[in-house]
Order: sequence, then C-alpha cells, then structure tokens
Amino acid sequence: MSKLDDLFPKTFVNVNGNITNAVDAKISIFDRGFLYGDSIYEVTLTEDRSIIFWEEHLDRLENSAHLIGLPLSLTREQITEEVKKTLVKANLERAYIRLVVTRGEGIISLDPNTSTQNNFVIITRPFPPNPSEWYQEGVKLCFVSVLRNDKRSVDPNAKSGNYLNNVLAINEAKQKGFFDALMVNKDGYVTEGTTFNIWLVKDGVVKTPSLESGLLKGITRTKLLKIIRENNIPFEECSLTPDDFHQADEVFMTASTKGIVPVNRVDEYHYNVENFKRVKELTTYYQGMVESLKNDQKYRY
Amino acid sequence: MSKLDDLFPKTFVNVNGNITNAVDAKISIFDRGFLYGDSIYEVTLTEDRSIIFWEEHLDRLENSAHLIGLPLSLTREQITEEVKKTLVKANLERAYIRLVVTRGEGIISLDPNTSTQNNFVIITRPFPPNPSEWYQEGVKLCFVSVLRNDKRSVDPNAKSGNYLNNVLAINEAKQKGFFDALMVNKDGYVTEGTTFNIWLVKDGVVKTPSLESGLLKGITRTKLLKIIRENNIPFEECSLTPDDFHQADEVFMTASTKGIVPVNRVDEYHYNVENFKRVKELTTYYQGMVESLKNDQKYRY
Repeated sequence: MSKLDDLFPKTFVNVNGNITNAVDAKISIFDRGFLYGDSIYEVTLTEDRSIIFWEEHLDRLENSAHLIGLPLSLTREQITEEVKKTLVKANLERAYIRLVVTRGEGIISLDPNTSTQNNFVIITRPFPPNPSEWYQEGVKLCFVSVLRNDKRSVDPNAKSGNYLNNVLAINEAKQKGFFDALMVNKDGYVTEGTTFNIWLVKDGVVKTPSLESGLLKGITRTKLLKIIRENNIPFEECSLTPDDFHQADEVFMTASTKGIVPVNRVDEYHYNVENFKRVKELTTYYQGMVESLKNDQKYRY
Repeated sequence: MSKLDDLFPKTFVNVNGNITNAVDAKISIFDRGFLYGDSIYEVTLTEDRSIIFWEEHLDRLENSAHLIGLPLSLTREQITEEVKKTLVKANLERAYIRLVVTRGEGIISLDPNTSTQNNFVIITRPFPPNPSEWYQEGVKLCFVSVLRNDKRSVDPNAKSGNYLNNVLAINEAKQKGFFDALMVNKDGYVTEGTTFNIWLVKDGVVKTPSLESGLLKGITRTKLLKIIRENNIPFEECSLTPDDFHQADEVFMTASTKGIVPVNRVDEYHYNVENFKRVKELTTYYQGMVESLKNDQKYRY
C-alpha cells in the first residue's frame, strides 16, 4: 500500500468528474492552484447522509470567486450534483467534504486571464467524531507573531488556496506546544484563528471580532449570530484585543468541521471550562439547528 | 492533441525524478502546494546550455525554505543533478527552468509538521527571446490598489506558492490596459512589481526600494547592485513613493527571465526611453556579466 492509501482509507476524489481513490487523484502541475495557490475552496461535513449548510457554503464559494475574480464554469446545481455523485460512491454516513476550484491551466503567467477553464476537485472521506476531550476539557490557543493577511493584500474573507499565512501561524503555535493559533491584524486587533472564528464571553455578553478586523465570515459564526439574535442573548461584534481574551470569563472557537469548541487557555491565561454557561447554552442551540438539517431532502445523498 | 500539448511543446517535467512530457506531469491533489500554496520556487533560464546564476537561485531557495520553515529533503547537488537531467532530456540551447518544492502530502491539516517528504517539480521548456519591443520601446506599468503582502504576514522575500496577492495585482493592471503592476506597502511606499524589482534614475542617481519596504531580493537586483558599486555609479537603496517614480528621468524593471526592461510609462506619466542613458549603461554591463557565465562549466548541461 502506498502512503496515501494508508492516510486516506475509504476516500474518494472527484477531479473534473472522474472519481478515483486517493492514490490516483492527481492534477496537472501546470494547474494555477498548484503554481500560485490561485484557487478557492470550501469544507463541510455530512450528518446522516445530509450535507450540512451546503447552501451557505455555495454562497461563500461564489463570494470567494467574486473576491478573487475567478469565473465559475459550473453552476451551483452542477457542483452539487458532482458532490453528491462522489458521496454516493464513497457511501459514507458521515463524511468530510472538501471542494477546491482552481483557475485551471494555461501558459505560465501570473495573468489570470491566460487560463479560463476551472479545475474542480472534490475530496470525500470518512469523518469520525472529533475527540470528545476537545468539547469536555477545551483546547489551548496562543497569539502568534504572524499577522493575519491585510484585507487590502489578500482578503481573509476569500477562502482561497493561499494559506501560507495560516500555516506559518499554526506552526508557531505548535512549536510553543499549543493546539492552534490566534492572529491579530496590523493594528493589534484580534481577527481569527488559522481555520476558525474566535469568541469570548464577559459578564454574560458574547463578543466576537467584527468583519472590519479582517477575517473569514465563518458559516458556523453566521449561524451562531442568528441563534444569539433569536434568543436575545447579549451580544457585541466589535474590535477586540488579546487582553480582552485574557480577561474573559469564557472563550470558544467555531468552525464548520468542529462546531463550538471551548478554549481552556489563551497564552498564559486559564479558564474553567466546566463553568462555561454561555458556551453550553449556545452549543445546545447549535446542535439543535444541525439536527434539524438532517431532514433536509435537498442535500441528502 | 490535448490543450497542454499545444501550450507546452518540447516541454519536459521532472516530478520527483520521473521525467515526462507536459500532459503527463501530475501531482497528487493532496500535495500541500496544491491545497495551501505551501511551496517555494525558483525560475531561471539557460544560455548556451549553461544555467544562469544557478548558485544564487539555490541560495535563495534555501532562504525561502528557511523563511517558511520547510526542510529540504534533497541537497543542492541532488537538486542540480535533477535539473541537469531534465535539461539534457529537453535538449534545449536556451531553456526556461521552474523549480517548485512543496512540503509534500500528509493528512489534511494546516500543521506543516504533518507532512515531511518534499515533492520536487522541475519544468524545462524552450525559452524564445523576449519581444524586442520591450527593450526598444519599453513597457507601461501602473500602481494598483492591491497592497503588497506585509512582511509580518507572508514575507515577500520568501518566493512561495502564495501568489494570489500578485495575481490580483496584475489582474487590476491588465484591466486598466497596462503591461504589469507596481505595488506599495501599507505605508504607501513602493515595494516591487508582481514578478520583478523596480528602479528609477533621477539626476543621474539610480534608486530602488530598500528591502525594509517588503520585497523579494531579486537576483538580477543583487547583480545590478554589484555592477553599480563596482562602477561607482551614484546610487541609493531607500524608501520611494509612487510620485518619486512619476517624477523620475528613467524607470526600469529587473527580473531573472527578462533582464533589464525600460519602462515608458507609470500611471499617466510618460518617459522617453530613447534618452535612457543609465539604463543603456547598466544593460551593457549586465549583458557582459551574463555573457561571462556561459563559460561556467559547473552549471553546463
């Protein structure tokens, strides 16, 4: 067995309509995603054979495409069809889905107009439950020296194949022994984690960095804001400093493949996850919302 | 014939030691270069079967690897051997070489420590002379709204696979009808073009943005600085604004695959390329330096 067979059992990959196993899933080295990171992507999962928040992921894919000026050569319906085909082939109750769209291949030139035919890659693989310790005990995060990309350079709200900024950030956190990294912008305000949004609770008020700080508008973030509004939970979307997190009563992260994860430590500041009342309340609401999606016929496979 | 056959005649690609034509040159979609732009690269050319400034490109590759914490699993000698093997197979007098090194494949995780075996990709193809108009008439450039990546986010001095910043910049320039783009940093100081360094001459003094502004230390740039010093040409490496370029007597760009190219226009400011005395002087020196390399046995193939 090759290394990829070991790493990716029961994994199926759809490259422009051709579904193969992990080992045979290849792309031209002239693809602009490979050469320049000139691509966009989405990640979500399925529960009970239903794709979670797929409509919202397609909306965001279109927004990312718009932000980097990448014309999509397949419609939402065609993309969904290909995703479903791959999921049917993979035959998994609970799957991880990664959809990557690149600007395709052309002459070697930075000019994006030299390449007009997208490459579509869909990865589906089993998605076992995340470690229960994450949710029971929390995870530890730290602020790193790497600044989040400036909105005027590469907008963090475009979910693109340029993730070196985040790779450098998580590497710094791992070297310091932390689970993952939090990044500030050039003005010192908190933006987000490497692949997640970040939140705090202080005196009962839920707070998260506003979009102006330069961050990805996470889908779990948007859903949680909806829950917060509908339930009249005190809330602020605002500029936050690392110290606001250090002095918080509760800290948590959100991500599509993780849901709501409590944070037990930020830098040298520790929190008592057992006493996280708001996090528990929000988690219950969020799980109810995900549960209700399982009956959504539109994105079943 | 496939599209890639048309686009890349006489092109040979070496992927981890296996040399193929352009169409068959593929990489796993799990490669971190493809997924995150987690890669570094170098581009150079050959003249009369000799690789130009190869020592310096290897130095820079090692520096890029250092800046993004990517351990290289081949030595300089092994990399050079693979490049030469590919050039021998391609059998070209004058070739374009692109070397891409990625962090390889691992589980899907941003954490770079989850993948430890590099993928090496070497592209060699014929490199016809650049259009003579570039050198005789000059090219037109414009400043764009896209800011060059901040050094503290993704250092522009790491020549990495995260080139979306530059793709967005050139796209803006092309849409405005220009040849290519110039970028400033967040403080408004000029950094570089999308794939080249930028220079001006004012009252006989040659000036180029200093490294502090956040730019790639181009190899042609370094060579030209050497020529300038050796010939006692008045010179400044300093902070420059777009207006310094607008008010300049001569403007030119440098890049490994282009050499020295005069600029006939920046934004709405026009220059008379025929009167570019310094550019002509520097070009003569530079061509002499490149000519002398053709006898360098070490990097002949």
